[in-house]
Amino acid sequence: MSARPPSGESGATLIVGAGLIGASIGMALVAAGRSVWLEDADPDVTRLAAALGAGTAAPLSPGQAGVAVDTVIVAVPPAAIATECSRLTHTYPTATVIHVCSVQTRPRLEIDRLMLNSSHIIGTHPMAGSERGGPTASSAALFRDRPWVICPDGCEPSAAAVADDVVRACGGYPVRMSATAHDDAVALVSHTPQLVSSALAGQLADAAPEIVTIAGTGIRDLTRLAGADPVLWRDIIASNAGPVRRHLRDLRDALDRVILALGESGPGDHENAAVTRLLDRGRAGRERLGGKHGSRGRHWSTVQVVIEDRPGTLVAVLSACQDLGVNVEDISVDHAPGHPVGVLELQVDPVAADSLAEALRSRGWEVAGVAFPHD
Amino acid sequence: MSARPPSGESGATLIVGAGLIGASIGMALVAAGRSVWLEDADPDVTRLAAALGAGTAAPLSPGQAGVAVDTVIVAVPPAAIATECSRLTHTYPTATVIHVCSVQTRPRLEIDRLMLNSSHIIGTHPMAGSERGGPTASSAALFRDRPWVICPDGCEPSAAAVADDVVRACGGYPVRMSATAHDDAVALVSHTPQLVSSALAGQLADAAPEIVTIAGTGIRDLTRLAGADPVLWRDIIASNAGPVRRHLRDLRDALDRVILALGESGPGDHENAAVTRLLDRGRAGRERLGGKHGSRGRHWSTVQVVIEDRPGTLVAVLSACQDLGVNVEDISVDHAPGHPVGVLELQVDPVAADSLAEALRSRGWEVAGVAFPHD
Repeated sequence: MSARPPSGESGATLIVGAGLIGASIGMALVAAGRSVWLEDADPDVTRLAAALGAGTAAPLSPGQAGVAVDTVIVAVPPAAIATECSRLTHTYPTATVIHVCSVQTRPRLEIDRLMLNSSHIIGTHPMAGSERGGPTASSAALFRDRPWVICPDGCEPSAAAVADDVVRACGGYPVRMSATAHDDAVALVSHTPQLVSSALAGQLADAAPEIVTIAGTGIRDLTRLAGADPVLWRDIIASNAGPVRRHLRDLRDALDRVILALGESGPGDHENAAVTRLLDRGRAGRERLGGKHGSRGRHWSTVQVVIEDRPGTLVAVLSACQDLGVNVEDISVDHAPGHPVGVLELQVDPVAADSLAEALRSRGWEVAGVAFPHD
Repeated sequence: MSARPPSGESGATLIVGAGLIGASIGMALVAAGRSVWLEDADPDVTRLAAALGAGTAAPLSPGQAGVAVDTVIVAVPPAAIATECSRLTHTYPTATVIHVCSVQTRPRLEIDRLMLNSSHIIGTHPMAGSERGGPTASSAALFRDRPWVICPDGCEPSAAAVADDVVRACGGYPVRMSATAHDDAVALVSHTPQLVSSALAGQLADAAPEIVTIAGTGIRDLTRLAGADPVLWRDIIASNAGPVRRHLRDLRDALDRVILALGESGPGDHENAAVTRLLDRGRAGRERLGGKHGSRGRHWSTVQVVIEDRPGTLVAVLSACQDLGVNVEDISVDHAPGHPVGVLELQVDPVAADSLAEALRSRGWEVAGVAFPHD
């Protein structure tokens, strides 16, 4: 396989690390008409990513084949970011180096320990991805309409502009934050939830079989993240230990207040101020996440339909929605363990919910209920 | 409105409490050909449930209109269970009394404090329901193929048989457990997750707006329960304080080990044994929940499709699945806040995943990726 020099008006982009994120960036940039070279510590990964359309395997020597690299994207595990950024600066001294990392402060400190001048290196973090890894899960659409954090701490403005350009070429939208603000934010919305999900799921590890039998959708939702790759997460958590520890302590303290209050309540108490405070505050926090499209406070109605487990069931129900011109805003299927019937939940505009339920019933579907938003 | 005496070979069933659960039981029993009387502290709720087909509003005096009640179902809030069971035993001394409650030990103790002989009273708990309440959310199908726990502690065998019969008439399947085992199980799979979800969501209550902007599907899944009714949950948690406290302490201890380890780790550590143990154990616990149909360890492949937000999009994608004879095992839509494009995730048999992705692409859909189960 001979390396063909990528063409293009500006210089080429070199992507180092061709896993899920690196390969997806490559696919998006290729689709946007950019020249992309790929490099990975594992040549098989490079070949696979190239075969999937993420770019061209880079030549072994940077001087070869007329390669003019002006942008380097480093998408390797957190622990390897700093050494790779340093190495690639030596190889491509005039290029802007963009790294992609779940944490930002620690790689920035490590880079500044290794290099006197790092103002051409900029840290970024696309808020997209998957609990699955590798180039086979990658896609040019991974970043489409997703936020992508850019941390311009100590960078030349031109480096931030190059990062903005890459984010937009991938279909994402840039969100500027300091490295500290980013790490605090992801500790709250990503790293702490991961640990809590694992802790909850861990309680099921030795639970009696009948307990697992009666587990419903609530615990399933809460333990989904616990299925993620432990090696990747160990690295992420270790790289953001301070902020994770702070938010985890806040959470622990909130639970401690409830534990204490439950220990003090007598057998006749049907009210508990600490529990009420926790539940009320949780509802207020949940409210801030809002619905889709960022339309906070907008609520959908839910139409529940009992469906059987055979091909065509979902499409038949959704055909009825289409016939009525009702847009299904969100959809989920709840299956009871051991049973071939499930409940399909359709989130729709409250104005359309009743007529939809009626129409589905008239077509012979069993509508289990219609629920309207209650605040 | 005059009360007509329900007809039927055996005696009538009286349902006390016509909210979501009571009305749904009424609908299911009416559909099964039973005679059902309804009673609720709020006459409007009774009328609404009756109008929805959950039964007939009960006459004010039990002797009226030839009512022969042989089964009483008590579906009132946990704190009111014992007094209602006692009152109804006096009114219908020959009836079996089945109560429906999220907790079991405490109502059993309260009943035994009120009554010398309570062997005709049996506690049950259908593992179904909704974070929404009231008769308008109710349905005859609510219990279809769902587990329904029956706690026969101290009951006559005939009472347990009557409970089994009601559960089956509602389409559910009985799961026998002691009251203690039940309360321990729901503390683990329902009550502790509720408090943890509220605690996590509570951390978002005062978070900066940009933090909310970058929140993804993980934290959304984990905080869904936090939207539930705080008053109902305060009551449930208070009624199961002991087991909830025990499991919450276990969880707190697991988090404490991580907090401690994170405080001790130096800035250069990229590994942390306590974090690794938590993540590994979480993955093992999650694995036990398995997929749908109780088929533990069976994994589906995920085909991700980028979809736009307009009527007919879902149905068009699912039509393609139907044409190929591919059964969609599960489905979800991930929306990025502020953006009109989402990613549809289709869970399908791994054998069919690649050809499905191919077929969707050939029809012009943007397939963002195919992921196979990785263990």
